[in-house]
Amino acid sequence: MAAELTAHQLIATHRPTLDQALETIRTRAYWSPHPEHPKAYGENGSLSLPEGKAAFDALLGSRFDLDQPGTDDWTGAEVSPYGPELGITYPHPDIDTLLPAMRAGMRAWRDAGAEVRAMVCLEILSRISARTHEMAHAVMHTSGQAFMMAFQAGGPHAQDRGLEAVAYAYVEQSRTPDAADWSKPQGKRDPLGLNKRFTPVARGIALLIGCNTFPTWNGYPGLFASLATGNPVLVKPHPRAVLPLALTVRVAREALSDAGFDPNLVCLAAERPDEGIAKTLAVRPEIKIIDYTGSTAFGDWLEANARQAQVYTEKAGVNTVVVDSTDNYKGMLANLAFSLSLYSGQMCTTPQNLLIPRDGITTDAGAKSYDDVVSDLAASVNGLLGDDARANGILGALVNPDVKARLEAASGLGEVALPSREISNPEFPGAVVRTPVIVKLDGAKPDAEAVYLNECFGPVSFAVAVDSSADAVELLRRTVRDKGAMTVGAYTTSDEVSGAVEETCLEECAQLSLNLTGGVYVNQTAAFSDFHGSGGNPAANAALCDGAFVANRFRVVEVRRDA
Amino acid sequence: MAAELTAHQLIATHRPTLDQALETIRTRAYWSPHPEHPKAYGENGSLSLPEGKAAFDALLGSRFDLDQPGTDDWTGAEVSPYGPELGITYPHPDIDTLLPAMRAGMRAWRDAGAEVRAMVCLEILSRISARTHEMAHAVMHTSGQAFMMAFQAGGPHAQDRGLEAVAYAYVEQSRTPDAADWSKPQGKRDPLGLNKRFTPVARGIALLIGCNTFPTWNGYPGLFASLATGNPVLVKPHPRAVLPLALTVRVAREALSDAGFDPNLVCLAAERPDEGIAKTLAVRPEIKIIDYTGSTAFGDWLEANARQAQVYTEKAGVNTVVVDSTDNYKGMLANLAFSLSLYSGQMCTTPQNLLIPRDGITTDAGAKSYDDVVSDLAASVNGLLGDDARANGILGALVNPDVKARLEAASGLGEVALPSREISNPEFPGAVVRTPVIVKLDGAKPDAEAVYLNECFGPVSFAVAVDSSADAVELLRRTVRDKGAMTVGAYTTSDEVSGAVEETCLEECAQLSLNLTGGVYVNQTAAFSDFHGSGGNPAANAALCDGAFVANRFRVVEVRRDA
Repeated sequence: MAAELTAHQLIATHRPTLDQALETIRTRAYWSPHPEHPKAYGENGSLSLPEGKAAFDALLGSRFDLDQPGTDDWTGAEVSPYGPELGITYPHPDIDTLLPAMRAGMRAWRDAGAEVRAMVCLEILSRISARTHEMAHAVMHTSGQAFMMAFQAGGPHAQDRGLEAVAYAYVEQSRTPDAADWSKPQGKRDPLGLNKRFTPVARGIALLIGCNTFPTWNGYPGLFASLATGNPVLVKPHPRAVLPLALTVRVAREALSDAGFDPNLVCLAAERPDEGIAKTLAVRPEIKIIDYTGSTAFGDWLEANARQAQVYTEKAGVNTVVVDSTDNYKGMLANLAFSLSLYSGQMCTTPQNLLIPRDGITTDAGAKSYDDVVSDLAASVNGLLGDDARANGILGALVNPDVKARLEAASGLGEVALPSREISNPEFPGAVVRTPVIVKLDGAKPDAEAVYLNECFGPVSFAVAVDSSADAVELLRRTVRDKGAMTVGAYTTSDEVSGAVEETCLEECAQLSLNLTGGVYVNQTAAFSDFHGSGGNPAANAALCDGAFVANRFRVVEVRRDA
Repeated sequence: MAAELTAHQLIATHRPTLDQALETIRTRAYWSPHPEHPKAYGENGSLSLPEGKAAFDALLGSRFDLDQPGTDDWTGAEVSPYGPELGITYPHPDIDTLLPAMRAGMRAWRDAGAEVRAMVCLEILSRISARTHEMAHAVMHTSGQAFMMAFQAGGPHAQDRGLEAVAYAYVEQSRTPDAADWSKPQGKRDPLGLNKRFTPVARGIALLIGCNTFPTWNGYPGLFASLATGNPVLVKPHPRAVLPLALTVRVAREALSDAGFDPNLVCLAAERPDEGIAKTLAVRPEIKIIDYTGSTAFGDWLEANARQAQVYTEKAGVNTVVVDSTDNYKGMLANLAFSLSLYSGQMCTTPQNLLIPRDGITTDAGAKSYDDVVSDLAASVNGLLGDDARANGILGALVNPDVKARLEAASGLGEVALPSREISNPEFPGAVVRTPVIVKLDGAKPDAEAVYLNECFGPVSFAVAVDSSADAVELLRRTVRDKGAMTVGAYTTSDEVSGAVEETCLEECAQLSLNLTGGVYVNQTAAFSDFHGSGGNPAANAALCDGAFVANRFRVVEVRRDA
């Protein structure tokens, strides 16, 4: 087909953005090409807030056609955590037809080279960015995130992570030149000479297994890392969060096609209820790369069984905050309160265990007992969420009944320092909105340990009384080593304690946020600057995004001949 | 301890070499800091040929003490493929003592940073280089390589591959800065600010499982990649080829110690006869990285069972040369004859299957039938190896009785086009020296396929008659896909055939040498320029050396705090 977008046009449009991304992953300074403010959209072809809402509404109750080969059925049963059924059906694949069709475009995609692949990926991201307002609604009504978070995390922040992956993929592929002349001196004889050509080649079809809570943010790094390195990508969304990735696939297919490539390089595989299609796909010989975010059980299964593929997993962890001392007690409480409340604690980065010495801590507001700290934190959460409109904007809705069940069971696990409260959502009466619960536990008691050393995903935190800060550091070490952690936080004014926490995080390989008291929270990471996960503890075998995340998604083939 | 070598001294000495290596892995031009000629040694502290021989002789019949903790016994039963018993015993480890001792120096090694680690690695390589003549004898009398090859491949070429790995490791670790200031604008409010520090951290102890044929060449990439990224390295040599790696470990320990680091960052684990210590070590929780060269069976076992570790394997493959046509018939024959003969075909890169159309090929010397090509190649091998002294210098000795048995069985596999011949070695009467055998097989016959589609490691090649060059390309594809290949060669003057071979190698991920008729051979690769293996077919899951080979040997831990 005649490409509507030439390589020249794509490079003229997107190369400056790639260059800035390449620069920023080296400096780790702040940068993003994707605006965070809803009002920044609506011009230059991007959808405004009402246009995005209208586009989303138009999808409801319809068949989401992608014109994919091998569609044998239509499936979909998404229900918004805010109540409404989405009523959208998606193509269900006949795998034996779809997978070969996905391979057909690989050669042209390979021959395009790393730069053009990056440019097409940026074109996809730029088209997704233009539809951020539509995506915000799609993410909100599948993940249960509040609108503003769905807009930012599901839109610009996810796009940033995708762009970051493209940048890493481009760097990695361009480390080796396309060609080289090699001439080896042989003393008085003629030198030995070879002409060499080097070509990055794909591994095969990549499978992206999406998650319920952050379908785009957690999905884009793997999707774009694989695509930019030449691999077709089959997107298998979580059955409760299909729409955001279906929209993504549609945009990707259109952009690929407009740039003259086979749209089947990106396909969707929606599954029937309880079909478990991921398990079938994961062990297909055509699947050479898998990106997965979800439960430890299935992540472990993938690592053990999908042996024909490179497997990148983000699984469960137990995130800890060590509370030793602070020179900004109010700031610490406010920061922690927000971290526990944001999206009802349904982030893989939300702190779960707050380790507080049973003899209390020193602060700029005087000595505070363990009970003081816990009750002051509870009061801070209550203050933050006292207004229902504000609470709805921070908490969003519980993503599924499992989270609700865990929350309800939490009050039986120990003394409740902060009970969970129901919040009504006037706009969406069907939304299940709850404030977080904080449960007191004695860190020294084995039955308590059995509770706090397991991930309790959702708005549940444990205020764990420990013997000392040294004890807290040891418990931190054990938690990271045995259970994994996406994040670690610590509050301390002591160089000794901060040194011990840092050393523990370096040795056990966990990302540490120290003394955050302002507007940055332990659960948030910024693309181009912060690593999400470390890839070195049981919570995740990869970090977003580093060289290791991209380097093994392709191989380099050398063809050499006598000069 | 007071370091005899300061970081400043190390940087002054070795940084220019590292910089040149960094430059060369980008240009892929020819370069090496390690001289290939035996006469280049003997000054500036390096051992001359007689000094190297004397140093080797002094080791024979002695205990090779390394002053390692947890040595519970002494073991060793190396017999030179040239006849003599070496009579050297090495420390056998009490693993429960040795492994914790190896971890003790990790923190200081981490805190030294990527540059100083690289400098210490280069100091080790430079001390090994100075002892190249001693190493040449050690490699010769464990691998059976002829002296000149043991000198070059076991010395400078191995050191080049080690340096290459250090360069890749340094690049990878220095992609992220040590620190960054991050400032995010907040409209009219103050920007959000964070100070971030980034530290590359080791994964844990790395295990190097050495091979019999190329103990240093195949061992150094993993050893130096792991050490340069902060990991202690436990070296488990092949029981028939301990000495080259024991010498390496001794030099590494001395250099580490002189630079003020714990020598136990590099240790040796020699094993008792039939102990199978690699299997025990490979699944220890302290072992986080494994590098392995050897049989497919054990490589597959490692990949399946050492799940706590990153596993890098080079296993068996079936190397193919497609013979379609040539404009330099004599050059092709001479080049192939040398490739088949070098080190008695005991290279993982030696061609095994020569695919030749049964209707013959076109050449600058006229049309040649299948029989012509095979008999001319046989004559070329006979010419190359006609002189016994020269034959000994090319062939070396058979490395072990298994190779000899396979060679002897080969004559029963088909029509023998070139019988193997015994060569006597006047200097070492005990050496088993044999010229290669070439066996004719009909590619279309299933019983022949069962023969040529399995690796027959040693001086055995199959002249496989195929229906056409297109048939050859399809067989090449199937061979690489199903059996793996370290190398592919092709001779053709046809753009169509070269295009088909290239496309097959790109799709099946194999390294291709086209129309080599001069002094470069398909079985040889040069560090800094050629990739050894592709990591994308069943012969090996990693390539020497690329970003993927180093990127996952360490992780980056970020510590951030409010600015």
